[in-house]
Amino acid sequence: MSRTDQPEVAIIMGSQSDWPTMKNAANTLEALGISYDARIVSAHRTPDRLVEFSKSAKKEGFKVIIAGAGGAAHLPGMAASMTPLPVFGVPIESRALKGQDSLLSIVQMPAGVPVGTLAIGRAGAVNAALMAASILALHNSQIAANLDEWREAQTKAVAEKPVDTEE
Amino acid sequence: MSRTDQPEVAIIMGSQSDWPTMKNAANTLEALGISYDARIVSAHRTPDRLVEFSKSAKKEGFKVIIAGAGGAAHLPGMAASMTPLPVFGVPIESRALKGQDSLLSIVQMPAGVPVGTLAIGRAGAVNAALMAASILALHNSQIAANLDEWREAQTKAVAEKPVDTEE
Amino acid sequence: MSRTDQPEVAIIMGSQSDWPTMKNAANTLEALGISYDARIVSAHRTPDRLVEFSKSAKKEGFKVIIAGAGGAAHLPGMAASMTPLPVFGVPIESRALKGQDSLLSIVQMPAGVPVGTLAIGRAGAVNAALMAASILALHNSQIAANLDEWREAQTKAVAEKPVDTEE
Amino acid sequence: MSRTDQPEVAIIMGSQSDWPTMKNAANTLEALGISYDARIVSAHRTPDRLVEFSKSAKKEGFKVIIAGAGGAAHLPGMAASMTPLPVFGVPIESRALKGQDSLLSIVQMPAGVPVGTLAIGRAGAVNAALMAASILALHNSQIAANLDEWREAQTKAVAEKPVDTEE
Amino acid sequence: MSRTDQPEVAIIMGSQSDWPTMKNAANTLEALGISYDARIVSAHRTPDRLVEFSKSAKKEGFKVIIAGAGGAAHLPGMAASMTPLPVFGVPIESRALKGQDSLLSIVQMPAGVPVGTLAIGRAGAVNAALMAASILALHNSQIAANLDEWREAQTKAVAEKPVDTEE
Amino acid sequence: MSRTDQPEVAIIMGSQSDWPTMKNAANTLEALGISYDARIVSAHRTPDRLVEFSKSAKKEGFKVIIAGAGGAAHLPGMAASMTPLPVFGVPIESRALKGQDSLLSIVQMPAGVPVGTLAIGRAGAVNAALMAASILALHNSQIAANLDEWREAQTKAVAEKPVDTEE
Amino acid sequence: MSRTDQPEVAIIMGSQSDWPTMKNAANTLEALGISYDARIVSAHRTPDRLVEFSKSAKKEGFKVIIAGAGGAAHLPGMAASMTPLPVFGVPIESRALKGQDSLLSIVQMPAGVPVGTLAIGRAGAVNAALMAASILALHNSQIAANLDEWREAQTKAVAEKPVDTEE
Amino acid sequence: MSRTDQPEVAIIMGSQSDWPTMKNAANTLEALGISYDARIVSAHRTPDRLVEFSKSAKKEGFKVIIAGAGGAAHLPGMAASMTPLPVFGVPIESRALKGQDSLLSIVQMPAGVPVGTLAIGRAGAVNAALMAASILALHNSQIAANLDEWREAQTKAVAEKPVDTEE
Repeated sequence: MSRTDQPEVAIIMGSQSDWPTMKNAANTLEALGISYDARIVSAHRTPDRLVEFSKSAKKEGFKVIIAGAGGAAHLPGMAASMTPLPVFGVPIESRALKGQDSLLSIVQMPAGVPVGTLAIGRAGAVNAALMAASILALHNSQIAANLDEWREAQTKAVAEKPVDTEE
Repeated sequence: MSRTDQPEVAIIMGSQSDWPTMKNAANTLEALGISYDARIVSAHRTPDRLVEFSKSAKKEGFKVIIAGAGGAAHLPGMAASMTPLPVFGVPIESRALKGQDSLLSIVQMPAGVPVGTLAIGRAGAVNAALMAASILALHNSQIAANLDEWREAQTKAVAEKPVDTEE
Repeated sequence: MSRTDQPEVAIIMGSQSDWPTMKNAANTLEALGISYDARIVSAHRTPDRLVEFSKSAKKEGFKVIIAGAGGAAHLPGMAASMTPLPVFGVPIESRALKGQDSLLSIVQMPAGVPVGTLAIGRAGAVNAALMAASILALHNSQIAANLDEWREAQTKAVAEKPVDTEE
Repeated sequence: MSRTDQPEVAIIMGSQSDWPTMKNAANTLEALGISYDARIVSAHRTPDRLVEFSKSAKKEGFKVIIAGAGGAAHLPGMAASMTPLPVFGVPIESRALKGQDSLLSIVQMPAGVPVGTLAIGRAGAVNAALMAASILALHNSQIAANLDEWREAQTKAVAEKPVDTEE
Repeated sequence: MSRTDQPEVAIIMGSQSDWPTMKNAANTLEALGISYDARIVSAHRTPDRLVEFSKSAKKEGFKVIIAGAGGAAHLPGMAASMTPLPVFGVPIESRALKGQDSLLSIVQMPAGVPVGTLAIGRAGAVNAALMAASILALHNSQIAANLDEWREAQTKAVAEKPVDTEE
Repeated sequence: MSRTDQPEVAIIMGSQSDWPTMKNAANTLEALGISYDARIVSAHRTPDRLVEFSKSAKKEGFKVIIAGAGGAAHLPGMAASMTPLPVFGVPIESRALKGQDSLLSIVQMPAGVPVGTLAIGRAGAVNAALMAASILALHNSQIAANLDEWREAQTKAVAEKPVDTEE
Repeated sequence: MSRTDQPEVAIIMGSQSDWPTMKNAANTLEALGISYDARIVSAHRTPDRLVEFSKSAKKEGFKVIIAGAGGAAHLPGMAASMTPLPVFGVPIESRALKGQDSLLSIVQMPAGVPVGTLAIGRAGAVNAALMAASILALHNSQIAANLDEWREAQTKAVAEKPVDTEE
Repeated sequence: MSRTDQPEVAIIMGSQSDWPTMKNAANTLEALGISYDARIVSAHRTPDRLVEFSKSAKKEGFKVIIAGAGGAAHLPGMAASMTPLPVFGVPIESRALKGQDSLLSIVQMPAGVPVGTLAIGRAGAVNAALMAASILALHNSQIAANLDEWREAQTKAVAEKPVDTEE
């Protein structure tokens, strides 16, 4: 993956503590040959940065936004309110409510401002990257080929039989 | 209540459909002799209005903000991120999840940006107004007296015995 | 909207009873000038149709799939397992659990097979169409313009002040 | 237990990580003298394998299918959509939502395609095996005797009095 | 369906008020040519009847038990504790908690005493009958044929396209 | 029932609106020949009345307290904190959360101050009365006989067979 | 406490694994000078023992029954269906659902068969003992005095100020 | 912070075990130069202390009350019923239900007696202090300046880019 040119995907997250989860999105994008930029944009602690980022994201050249947030997770929805780009939300697993608050805060957007929401936690971060890939693949045959290959490898990696392991 | 001067409380809500709930806040403020201004400010559909309102609310002269929103309810928390004024959130009862989404989206704010959250629906709207009154009463003896009177009347209105009614 | 050529978006749903919800996706696509095809594809009652549809959707020329389902809602995820196209899921409001089952069945996909999930019910259907529009807009300036116009109209339609209504 | 002949029960699961739970089904079947075959069949990562397995399960000679899956757990219901055999679902305890998502994804099947759902986790896996035994016992007196013996032993193993233990 | 001989399936329910739901099980059995007997057996109000029924069900000649109950729904599990026959539980939709209490009370059985649990309400009742059919079909070619036909008819009844209806 | 002497059971409730539910407790007590007094005692609106009632309930001669409350239901627990009498709590079905808030607010008391909690709504009110009866029956053979008779009548009232009704 | 004579309270529980929780009830009863007998009575694995215990509990001389159970917790309610004695239920904290299943299975009893339900886990076990004490205290001045003393000691044990501790 | 004069904020909590959470409120107040007094006031174990504290809090000179409690959390609401001061509630994370019980017990207050509720756990405690600060800042320019500075520092502390860390 080349990070020198304008990246196609922006990964934003509410805080540094979201990075261990969101890094799975970054890693998946890298595996698929998709450039990205990862930034901390806190809806609540840096609202100006949120506005600036969201309003300029399309002009900057981003095509897809992936936003991770936990608890009263407003980042994905607020970004979506200020950009016509597709926004995908990753609910971070929160301490007390295990991401149920994050999930509802992200997915229950009102008609008019959509956020494509993925699963709570790591799986959601991986899948947000795959969603981005599926979109970019519509007009990028290299990414399309990478995605197909990735999916085939995933299918092949499923063993026929379970094996006993040391738990 | 006089609406001629700068009102002390701003009531904002995400959409016209929240007004039947939020009007209970307005009515309670009126009953307590507190001036207010009610506006529709949609975090998702009018983000610029949200920023403008939140950043200027203190300068405009408001002392307390009451914000009602439903579903992925981002209005109270986003307002709180852009004003040092106390912000109270009223979770509107949503269609499918009955306000459980609204409640979690409002109350589970991260450390650093508080929203004082009230009950789902009408009771929450009334109580947001009473919270505002209790704050203004700290430095306004007329409102303090009105609030005491209101509370006493409430206590006196509780009958000793239940009575059968036509249901 | 022209439905004569290959439509760009497939709207699939688990049963006829999902149509009153999913029609909101169709109407929104029409408003944005996006062609679509709406079909009933039941994961459980017509699994062959599901396989056939999902495996041929890309070849048929679809670019985005919108799938609505309720209860143990397997349609969006199963479609996503058999197509590299972006799939968006709309949780239909179910009778007993009000769509909480639909939501979890759709959103909690494992890493590797993503479904971009929208809100429960009507809002989710509208927003799935808007997600599709935001994707198609990346390479279609007419849809991009339509989407911008739609969003601006939405913003303008938000009144400044709430008004009393007959409830 | 003999695994040489056609086994009567198929245990399928979405991933290797489900085996520590599903092995309890296997162990219980073994204890009851019931032959089984355990396979990994991922609804999402190996949909072709799912279709092939489900459509041929009856012809292969299986009588009962036990399917374990977690999160957006589509395996039991999709198998049930493609076989007339009785299918029992075991909700695997998921990380964030502790199997609540798995349970609802499995149990809330629409009218027409049933999955007999057991408890979340280990207890469910044991009980899926006991369900299979109760079915096979209807026409197999050896299994019926084994099941009666198993149940009696279980009853006898319940002590009269609790004893203090090192926790 | 002939009800003259010993019926193969027992439908039991906690109260008369469960019958509108459980009748869907009865109707489905009838449609599949399966004989049944429907009885009210309240775990809480008629515990003796519960014990008597459960302990004699196998001797009476029943092969499958379908038990519907709501709220703190103990009927299916208690029946299962006193019979080696396969027991299927139908969670009745309760007033306040909409069957969430019924579902958890039925499905979360401890290891050792299984209840195959179906969906909350009508769908669960239909599916309990289909589970019974799938079991009886293992050794009854007529029922097997009826079940296949029923499933095929169900598949054929799914229209290709949704149609607008008066809501 | 005689209401002339000191009644044995106090029925308290947070507001007049709880009476349609709590009246079921009163009616059940009457049916069992147990004297009671029903009062409105709002923990939040009449805290003095709460203190006074709770501290004097034993001296007044009450033996059992039944307390119904909804939402953030503090009445049963606060009464229990100020009386050594057995207190039973009835969670009133609340508007938005259907009594889930009432239930948790009543039942999750910390170690040291118990409230015996019954089901949400009408069933809970009836059962609180039956709990009171079972306690009074320990030292009152008339009430014991009445309770036995009531339970027998209940058992006999359960029909053998469900009957079709106009729904 | 003397265990030589007929104990006044029966503590029953579904399995040995419930004892670490239920022992808190035993310890509290001992502290209050109340005799008890603790037994394992599994509703599901020893239904005959359940029937025998429940039907003879009153004749044996017990006055109050405390029943702890987890998951699909049927023990308290089934005991209550077969005895006129007051029954108190303690929801054991379950592995996956943390006692939410236990709580609903115990508390949501239908009208006619009451179980006084306490909090999930240890607090519930302590409080079940205190409920028993409050009942026995009605006719036993020694227990009444012990209970008063216990409550006073509890009140006195609450420090005025929090202190920092090593966490 | 000076603790010599009458403190402006009272921090009360139900038990010593709440202090590790509530200390975050204390620390935040100190950081903002706001005086406070922290006390243990158990609604259930020390109801007299609750009444005395609540009724005298205003006269003592407190301006804001912060109350933390867990489980059936009655402390904030009961304090609010006996004082006209603004009361903020912090739901303590409970063992089994992770603070969901605490949250609902605090937030779902009936119309007439408000509690401004913050997030479950540590974040809620910090934010209760910030709410108090925002109120005191209305008439105290030093606190207003401190709060502005605190918020600016918070904003500046948000890094631009996430960094990999040893997890």
